[in-house]
Amino acid sequence: MPRMKAAIFVEPGRIVLDEKPIPDPGPLDAVIRVTTTTICGTDIHILKGEYPVERGLTIGHEPVGVIEKLGAAVTSYEEGQRVIAGAITPSGHSHASLAGCGSQCGAGTPHGWKAMGGWRFGNTIDGCQAEYVLVPDAMANLAPVPDGLTDEQVLMCPDIMSTGFSGAESGKVRIGDTVVVFAQGPIGLCATAGARLNGASRIIAVDTVPERLAMARRMGADEVIDFRAVDPVEEIMRLTAGRGVDVAIEALGTQHTFEACLKSLRPGGTLSSLGVYSADLTIPLGAFAAGLGDHKIVTTLCPGGKERMRRLLDVVRAGRVDLGPLVTHRFKLEQIEEAYELFGNQRDGVLKVAITP
Amino acid sequence: MPRMKAAIFVEPGRIVLDEKPIPDPGPLDAVIRVTTTTICGTDIHILKGEYPVERGLTIGHEPVGVIEKLGAAVTSYEEGQRVIAGAITPSGHSHASLAGCGSQCGAGTPHGWKAMGGWRFGNTIDGCQAEYVLVPDAMANLAPVPDGLTDEQVLMCPDIMSTGFSGAESGKVRIGDTVVVFAQGPIGLCATAGARLNGASRIIAVDTVPERLAMARRMGADEVIDFRAVDPVEEIMRLTAGRGVDVAIEALGTQHTFEACLKSLRPGGTLSSLGVYSADLTIPLGAFAAGLGDHKIVTTLCPGGKERMRRLLDVVRAGRVDLGPLVTHRFKLEQIEEAYELFGNQRDGVLKVAITP
Amino acid sequence: MPRMKAAIFVEPGRIVLDEKPIPDPGPLDAVIRVTTTTICGTDIHILKGEYPVERGLTIGHEPVGVIEKLGAAVTSYEEGQRVIAGAITPSGHSHASLAGCGSQCGAGTPHGWKAMGGWRFGNTIDGCQAEYVLVPDAMANLAPVPDGLTDEQVLMCPDIMSTGFSGAESGKVRIGDTVVVFAQGPIGLCATAGARLNGASRIIAVDTVPERLAMARRMGADEVIDFRAVDPVEEIMRLTAGRGVDVAIEALGTQHTFEACLKSLRPGGTLSSLGVYSADLTIPLGAFAAGLGDHKIVTTLCPGGKERMRRLLDVVRAGRVDLGPLVTHRFKLEQIEEAYELFGNQRDGVLKVAITP
Amino acid sequence: MPRMKAAIFVEPGRIVLDEKPIPDPGPLDAVIRVTTTTICGTDIHILKGEYPVERGLTIGHEPVGVIEKLGAAVTSYEEGQRVIAGAITPSGHSHASLAGCGSQCGAGTPHGWKAMGGWRFGNTIDGCQAEYVLVPDAMANLAPVPDGLTDEQVLMCPDIMSTGFSGAESGKVRIGDTVVVFAQGPIGLCATAGARLNGASRIIAVDTVPERLAMARRMGADEVIDFRAVDPVEEIMRLTAGRGVDVAIEALGTQHTFEACLKSLRPGGTLSSLGVYSADLTIPLGAFAAGLGDHKIVTTLCPGGKERMRRLLDVVRAGRVDLGPLVTHRFKLEQIEEAYELFGNQRDGVLKVAITP
Repeated sequence: MPRMKAAIFVEPGRIVLDEKPIPDPGPLDAVIRVTTTTICGTDIHILKGEYPVERGLTIGHEPVGVIEKLGAAVTSYEEGQRVIAGAITPSGHSHASLAGCGSQCGAGTPHGWKAMGGWRFGNTIDGCQAEYVLVPDAMANLAPVPDGLTDEQVLMCPDIMSTGFSGAESGKVRIGDTVVVFAQGPIGLCATAGARLNGASRIIAVDTVPERLAMARRMGADEVIDFRAVDPVEEIMRLTAGRGVDVAIEALGTQHTFEACLKSLRPGGTLSSLGVYSADLTIPLGAFAAGLGDHKIVTTLCPGGKERMRRLLDVVRAGRVDLGPLVTHRFKLEQIEEAYELFGNQRDGVLKVAITP
Repeated sequence: MPRMKAAIFVEPGRIVLDEKPIPDPGPLDAVIRVTTTTICGTDIHILKGEYPVERGLTIGHEPVGVIEKLGAAVTSYEEGQRVIAGAITPSGHSHASLAGCGSQCGAGTPHGWKAMGGWRFGNTIDGCQAEYVLVPDAMANLAPVPDGLTDEQVLMCPDIMSTGFSGAESGKVRIGDTVVVFAQGPIGLCATAGARLNGASRIIAVDTVPERLAMARRMGADEVIDFRAVDPVEEIMRLTAGRGVDVAIEALGTQHTFEACLKSLRPGGTLSSLGVYSADLTIPLGAFAAGLGDHKIVTTLCPGGKERMRRLLDVVRAGRVDLGPLVTHRFKLEQIEEAYELFGNQRDGVLKVAITP
Repeated sequence: MPRMKAAIFVEPGRIVLDEKPIPDPGPLDAVIRVTTTTICGTDIHILKGEYPVERGLTIGHEPVGVIEKLGAAVTSYEEGQRVIAGAITPSGHSHASLAGCGSQCGAGTPHGWKAMGGWRFGNTIDGCQAEYVLVPDAMANLAPVPDGLTDEQVLMCPDIMSTGFSGAESGKVRIGDTVVVFAQGPIGLCATAGARLNGASRIIAVDTVPERLAMARRMGADEVIDFRAVDPVEEIMRLTAGRGVDVAIEALGTQHTFEACLKSLRPGGTLSSLGVYSADLTIPLGAFAAGLGDHKIVTTLCPGGKERMRRLLDVVRAGRVDLGPLVTHRFKLEQIEEAYELFGNQRDGVLKVAITP
Repeated sequence: MPRMKAAIFVEPGRIVLDEKPIPDPGPLDAVIRVTTTTICGTDIHILKGEYPVERGLTIGHEPVGVIEKLGAAVTSYEEGQRVIAGAITPSGHSHASLAGCGSQCGAGTPHGWKAMGGWRFGNTIDGCQAEYVLVPDAMANLAPVPDGLTDEQVLMCPDIMSTGFSGAESGKVRIGDTVVVFAQGPIGLCATAGARLNGASRIIAVDTVPERLAMARRMGADEVIDFRAVDPVEEIMRLTAGRGVDVAIEALGTQHTFEACLKSLRPGGTLSSLGVYSADLTIPLGAFAAGLGDHKIVTTLCPGGKERMRRLLDVVRAGRVDLGPLVTHRFKLEQIEEAYELFGNQRDGVLKVAITP
C-alpha cells in the first residue's frame, strides 16, 4: 500500500510529520493530492490539547489540490481537476444539511444532527496537512478552482474567508451599518473584509498589534482601536456619539471580547460570534438590558460545501478582496513542525502560512 | 428479470397499465415497494399532452411504501422500513440543493441548476404509479413514517401538503395576516390549512364548487366566496374595508385567478403563486401600481427532501391538520385507468384518490 | 384641575391608591378614560424595588379604555372611541421606530435609540392603573377595539399576548418545529399559544404548578413537564430522541431556565428569551458548543404600536386563541392594593387580574 | 404673505416657473429653504402628462436645504440646520409606516394603507423645485447633513440612491452573487453601485449609451453589454455558462427589459423591479417555468424616512460610493424650464442636473 507524509497528532504538545497509507476512496469519496494547505488557530488548540482529537489523526482542514482518484459513485468530476474543499464538509443528505445547516451535519446519527458534525477534516477523519486527503461526500464538497487563480489566492476560501465573511453575513450587516470587529487575526481580518463587502459604512477594527491594525485598514476598516491604548467600548461610544454599533463581531473567543461586543451594541443590535471559547461565558446584566434590549447573539461555524466554496472563489476571481497579504510565511510539508512552532507562538508577524507538500 | 405493473404514458390521451421490469437500485438509490400512491393534477396535464414527458414513462410522484432494496452506498436505512419520498427528490449535492433550492436541482449539469430539476418521479425518471419505484439519492429523500400513521394519513405529504403549505410559507404568512386563497382544489385546500397553521387571523377561500367551499371551511377558512355568485375582488375589498389582503395565494394556474390575486392585495402585499400556468400571464398595470406598490410575486415548486417530509409527517402525527377527508375515492392499481377517468374529469366530487398496488 | 384616582409608587414595598390631576394632552397625545387594566409581573418588580422608577409615578402599562380627549394635532380618531394602546408606545418618528425597532425608541435622544425607550407607561411617564391615562404619540399607538369584543377579551393584547407571541415570532417558529417553553406564567402561556399559532408540531411546556401545566395544554402544549418531578433537559432529550428542540423560549428570567433552554436546543437552534433577568447570566461552554453550534440567542421586548395591536385584536376577534381563562380575578380600582397583594404573592392560583376603575 | 418662486405643473407639456406663497408649517411640519434640488425621470412623466397630478402643483421631490421654520409640535431640530428629506415622506404613524412599509403610507385613510401614499412631494403636496418646501411629519423625515458634505454630494440621497440601492437590497443580493442591471440611467447606475455594495462578485450592466456603460463600470460593473450590439439574454447566458444570474434588476420600466430580466434569471432567482411601467406587463410562460421555477418578482418604491436618509448620508460620508459624476449639469432655479428641456430630451449626455434656488 503506497504511503505518504502527514502531520499527525501524537499527544498534547506534539504534532509530528510521519508516514501513513495513502487513503483509498469509498464510493462517495474522492482522494485529493494536496498542493497547498495551511495551519489554523484551531490546529494550535489541538496541538496544545485544548481541543481533543484522537491520537494518530492527521491534522488540517484547508485543502487546495488536484483530484487523484474518484469514488465509484462520484460523477461530474474528473481526475486531474484542480479543486478545493471547505473545512466543513456537509454530507448534503443529512437532516441538518437539508435544513441548510450543514455545519451541524449529523449524517449517520439517528436524527441527522450533530454539533459541529460537518467539521470532519482533522477532527473526526484524517485532515489535509498531508500529501493526500480523502474528501467525504465528494459531490457535495469539491469545488473546481477557476483558471488563472494560484493556490495561495484560494487558500483562505476553505476556512478563514468563509468563517470571517459569515461573521458579517450572520450579523446581517447591511448598507449603512456601523460595525465593530473585535480581534484582527486572520478570521477577524476576513470579518472586516466581509463587513465591507456587505455594505457597512463605518467599520471599526479592534486589536493591539500594529501590523494587524494596519492590515485591518487594508481589509476595509475605517477606524482602528488599540485596546491597550484606550478602552474600546468607550471609544466606540465616542465614535458613534453614544449610539453604539449595529453589529459587533467577536473573532477571538474570550470573555473580554465577547463582553466588549455586547457593551458596544446599540439597543436592538446583533453580536455575531465567531470565536472558539474555552470557558463559560458571562452575559453582563446591564449590557444585556436585563434581556429587554432586543439584542441578538448569533454564532456561526464556518459554512462549507461546494456552493459556498464556488461563491468565495468567485469573490477572489473578481478581485473583490485580496487576501494574498495574509500569507506571510511559506513552508514545505517537510518543515511543518517548524511552521507549527512559528504559527503557534505567533512569531515574526505571522498571519497565515502556506504549506506545500 | 422480475416484472411489475405500472401506469405508463403511451401518448397524449393514453395512460395505460402495463408491465415493466422491477428497477434495480444504483449505489445511491433505493427501490420501494409502493403500498399507496395517488394521482395529481399534473398527471392529468401529462395525460392530456399539455405537459410533455417521454413515451413509455411510468407516471406518479407521490409514493408511500416499504424499502425493498437499498443501493450499495446507502446507509442509515433498513430494508422493510415504511417510508415516503417527496414528489421532488433533490440530490442533496447539486449547487441548487446546497443553496437550499432543491426543487431546481441541477445534479449532472455543469453549473448545478436546472429548472424543475428536482422533479424527477414521473417526469424524467419512472414514477410511482407502479408496484415498485426507484428513489434516487435515497439518503436525501427517504423519510420513515412514524408508527401509528396509516398510508392514507401520510399520502398527501409528498406533494399537495408540501406544495399547499409552501403557498403560505413562501408568502410569509404570519400571525394576524389576512389571506385569500384562490381555488380550493387539493392544493388550494392545503394552502388554506397552511395559512391557518402559520397564524393568519382571517382566511378567505375562493372557489365555486359548494363541496370544496365546505371543505375549505373545514381546513380553516373563515370566509368563503363563490366567484360565480359575486365578484371576488370586490367582495374581498368589502370584507377588508378597502384595505386588501396581506397575502394572496394562487392555486389554480390561470390568468383570471392570478390577476384577481394581484387586485386583492394591499399595497406591499405578496402574491404567492402555486399554480401551473399554461400560457403567458398578464400583470395589469393598475393592480401592479405601475411597479411602485412594493408588491412581491413569489412562485414555489413543491419542496421535497427527507427533512421536509419529516416535518410534514410530524404535523400529521400531531394531528395539526386532518387531510383524511381529501381522499374521496379508493382504487386498486389494476383500476388506475378508471381512476384517471374519474379524477381527470373531476367527477363524483373527487378530491384525491388512493391507489393501492 | 379635576382629579382622579391612581395607583402610585411611593417607595419600595408600597404602591398606594391616591389622587392625581387628570392629565391634559399635548398636541400629539390623547387622554384615555381607562375602563379595564391589569397588573403585570414587572409591576411587582417595581413594587419590590427591583426595577427602579421615580417615586410618585403611576404604575401600569396595559390600558383598555375610551378616548376622552385628543391632542390638537391628532387626526383620524374620535373622542368616545373604544381603544387599547400597547404597553410599549413607540413614537413612530425616532430612528429606532423607523428602523422597525420601536421598543428601543429613542425619540428625544440625539441619535434616536434608547434601550427600552419604547416602554413609557408606568416606567418613564404615568401609567394606566388610574382613571385616566395620557397616551403619547397617540396616532402611532391608539388601536380601536373591534365591535363585539369585551374589555377582558382584549386586555391581554397590550402586553402579555404581544410579548408571548413574540417569543415564537422572534424564534422564527415554523411549521413542523419542536418548541419548548420554559415557565407557564401568563407570558409563557401566551408563548405556548404563539408557538401553536406559528405552526409548531410539537410543543413542550415546562413549569411546576399543576394549574399552569393544565392551562398550558389548553393553550396548545402537546406535552408538559413538571421540572420538580423530572430533569426537564433529560426529558426533552428523551422526547426528541436525543435531537433537541428547534426553538426554546425562556419566559421566566432566571439562570436556571436560560441554561435549560440552551441545553435543550438542537445544534443550530434558537433560544428566544422573553424573561426579565435580575443578575448576570452564564452561558455554559458545553451547551454553547464552545461557540461553534450555530446557536442563536434572541431577546424581545414586547412589540407595541397600533399596527401590532390591530393584528392581535384581529387574532382575538377571529377566536384563534381564547385568553379569557387567564383572567382569574377581578377587582375595582379602589381594591388595587389588595390586587397587588394577591398577584404579588401568586396566591389563589392567580394568573391575571382585571382592574376596573 | 411672502412669496417664492416655484416650478409649477400647468398642463401636460408645461411646467413653468411662477410665484406662490411661501408655505406655513402646521404643527407637525417644517418649512425648508431649498438650497439644491434636481429633476427626476418621474417629473418628465408628469410634464408629458403620463403621470397625472393636479394642475398648479409644485413639482420636485429631492430637497437639500436649511430648516427655515418648525411646526409647533416639532422637537429635536433647530432652525438653520442643514437637512435633506427623502422623496418619500412616511408619516411614521400610519399602519403602513408601523409595518415597515412607509412608501405605501396611508395616514388619513381608514385602514392606514395607500398605494404610493408615502410619495407626497410633487405628487399630492407641493414639491421642492421651489425656494421653499413644506416637509410633512418633519420628525420622521428630516435628516441632518453631516458636516463637510456639499449639497451635490448628498443630492442623490432622497431618491435615486435610495431607489437604486433598494434594487439590490430588495433583490437580497449577497456575497458571491451574479447580478445584471438592465438600463444604466441614474437609477440603474445606483442599482449597479448597490449591487457592488452588497457584495455581488459579478455585475453585468446593460444599456446602449456608451457614456452610461462607461459610468456603469465606474459604479462597479464588471461587464457591460450594449443591447443593440448583442442579444443581452444570450450574452448573459454565455457569460454565466448557461446558469443565469441570481438577481436581475429592472431599472427602466418597459416590457422589453422586464422580460429580459426574467429570461436572464437562474431557476430560483429574483427579479428586482424598480421601473415605472406605463402599460400592462407580460410574463412569458417559458421564462417563468410555467410558475414552477421558484422565481421571485419584487418591486420597490424608493424607501424614505430620516433613518433611511441617515444611512445613505453615512455611505456618502464614508466615501463608499461617489455619485458626484452623475451631476452633469447645473442650473439656477430661474433656468429650470431650460433644465427640463435638456433633461427631458436627454441631450448633451445629461445624467442628473443640480438646480439651485
